[in-house]
Amino acid sequence: MKKVYLKRKIAQRIAGGHPWIFANEVERVEGGPVAGDVVEVYFHDGKFAGKGYFNAQSQIMLRLLTVDKKATVNDDFFLQKIKECWSYRQQIGYVENCRLVFGEADGLPQLIIDKFNDYFVIQTLALGIDVWKPALVKALQTVFKPKGIYERNDVPVRELEGLPQQKGFLSEPFDTKIIINENGLKFHVDLENGQKTGYFLDQQDNRRAIQNIVKGADVLGAFTYTGTFEIHAAHYGAKSVLGIDISENAVAQANRNAELNGLQNVVKFEVANAFDVLKQWGKEEGKRYDVVMLDPPAFTKSRANIQKAITGYKEINLRGMKLIKPGGFLVTSSCTNLVQPDLFLKIIDMAAKDARRKLRQITFQAQSSDHPIIWNMENTNYLKFLIVQVV
Amino acid sequence: MKKVYLKRKIAQRIAGGHPWIFANEVERVEGGPVAGDVVEVYFHDGKFAGKGYFNAQSQIMLRLLTVDKKATVNDDFFLQKIKECWSYRQQIGYVENCRLVFGEADGLPQLIIDKFNDYFVIQTLALGIDVWKPALVKALQTVFKPKGIYERNDVPVRELEGLPQQKGFLSEPFDTKIIINENGLKFHVDLENGQKTGYFLDQQDNRRAIQNIVKGADVLGAFTYTGTFEIHAAHYGAKSVLGIDISENAVAQANRNAELNGLQNVVKFEVANAFDVLKQWGKEEGKRYDVVMLDPPAFTKSRANIQKAITGYKEINLRGMKLIKPGGFLVTSSCTNLVQPDLFLKIIDMAAKDARRKLRQITFQAQSSDHPIIWNMENTNYLKFLIVQVV
Repeated sequence: MKKVYLKRKIAQRIAGGHPWIFANEVERVEGGPVAGDVVEVYFHDGKFAGKGYFNAQSQIMLRLLTVDKKATVNDDFFLQKIKECWSYRQQIGYVENCRLVFGEADGLPQLIIDKFNDYFVIQTLALGIDVWKPALVKALQTVFKPKGIYERNDVPVRELEGLPQQKGFLSEPFDTKIIINENGLKFHVDLENGQKTGYFLDQQDNRRAIQNIVKGADVLGAFTYTGTFEIHAAHYGAKSVLGIDISENAVAQANRNAELNGLQNVVKFEVANAFDVLKQWGKEEGKRYDVVMLDPPAFTKSRANIQKAITGYKEINLRGMKLIKPGGFLVTSSCTNLVQPDLFLKIIDMAAKDARRKLRQITFQAQSSDHPIIWNMENTNYLKFLIVQVV
Repeated sequence: MKKVYLKRKIAQRIAGGHPWIFANEVERVEGGPVAGDVVEVYFHDGKFAGKGYFNAQSQIMLRLLTVDKKATVNDDFFLQKIKECWSYRQQIGYVENCRLVFGEADGLPQLIIDKFNDYFVIQTLALGIDVWKPALVKALQTVFKPKGIYERNDVPVRELEGLPQQKGFLSEPFDTKIIINENGLKFHVDLENGQKTGYFLDQQDNRRAIQNIVKGADVLGAFTYTGTFEIHAAHYGAKSVLGIDISENAVAQANRNAELNGLQNVVKFEVANAFDVLKQWGKEEGKRYDVVMLDPPAFTKSRANIQKAITGYKEINLRGMKLIKPGGFLVTSSCTNLVQPDLFLKIIDMAAKDARRKLRQITFQAQSSDHPIIWNMENTNYLKFLIVQVV
């Protein structure tokens, strides 16, 4: 049997449920496991810690799949896991679209599966889960009888695991341009070429949170991507909505989404750099909105550049606040786990002080609950969604 | 003119928007103000800080009402404030019932006004706002033409201000036992003898958050008071709901509320001490629930007893978790601002470790948004509402 023994110092973190074991936390390896093998993991004192997948090439040498000594990691193991994941999402109210598997939070490290009605998109971001792709596809077929399964492994992080970037069909080929329903609206989703898995399901619940504040309002959205927040605003009764995004493709898709919902007279999307445009409009008195919505990208992916992200978030929120009429609302998000919730609130507070505006917090929440949060696993607590009144 | 000059050291807090000035932060008082007077407040360097109400008998000698030098604090000032408060609540979607005035968060320190459809309950918790009661009543009459206004000043904190505890009609007398609508349900509210203002509006939005997890579930609720969470659970499709509360009156009212909604066959309330019962049932294997809901009182009102509150919250949550079937849900609240959100999560995490259960966070939010939060004013950030899956 292939076994890995851990150094004494990490016992507490692992016993507390954290599934990652770094190379420098491993005391010794027995039985010569090769990359992708499932191995038994033991604490320094010989007590069983769990079973996980091994990759000597990765900084994270081991990721635990189970702490049950009797569990066998095989096709049936993954079938049962997929069933549990679906059962949980149904319990918390998801019917059509959801993140079916949210990696570590579902005990399936580095596995992402998004369900778009009858279509599924998979990301296997570590070698040890990548080798189970056939089992995962089979499990999806058993549980859902899907119309299509697509692999979106065109993600740089795979290279840290010695894996190629790739995308393609895991089922019979199908038309990857689909239409999904969300909160009573319809959206084009491009499973092959859209960002990440094609669509941001993580804001699905948060989009409903703007329902009241946009009624009769003039709304500005920045970093609009598929235009989903803005089209929700129009649907919920905004007087006018302008969305800006730097990507021509995104703007074209967002305008198509507006048309798909018959809202093209209320909501328009234009190509622009949000930083430049918001700065410029801050100087023009006529450019004031009842609601400004900001949903920027992560600004950084590494802890080394955290200050850059802080500066970016502060800057864009400061500029956004300046465009809000007194008593209006700022709807603002951040999607990097490097900026944890407390820090995010501090950044917005700093921006308000610089903008000389007072804030009242109305709503502060995380990503949709199909992406559950595990405390002490920061990467599961990544999305901040805040609504404040700007006085 | 009556003037108060502040010590240098508090300039930053006051300039940052905090409205409280403690007696030991005052440099000198000019013009001989008497308790209840509105005075002009200046920073150490002579710059205008605001206008506020004065009470030398209170530890908090001054509370600011405005930072606008041109504002005159008179009847019309309060009329405009009430209009602004109502406008904000309408903007964020409240129609029938809401906290119309949330003290400091609305720039009206120590004033609480709850709106129960056509009825209003007022609390004036400091002398400087108490003297404006006639103006506030007049403002409510102008804006709402209410069927009744009631004073619930039977609150010990008034004595720190030299004010008597009292309650009674501020309008023509009316039947103070009313029925309100919330989320499609009806509830008896006793404005004269109910807790606080008669009813906890601060969980109004949170009660909707249990909608999915209670479907088909066996639910246990503790500290149920008017039974509102439990009746919501029944309404949202729970198989059975048992609510326990130590107060016979509360249980009788909760059972009347169940009947009022025709749900008395699904939801029952019984008189019991939650600490004892939960401990006992933890030992009985048959007593396991799909969902346990805990909405305990504050456990402490003073910072000196904070450890007692922590112990109480940990204990009751630990006992609650032990009654939850694997994969079930804990719905748990805390309503004291002495336990801030991060500390609350730590307490629940400790309870889970002791109960040897793993948690997944589904929802974590504050009080309803008619009680907005002002950052750096801890007393506005008081309610924690958490749903976790207990694995």
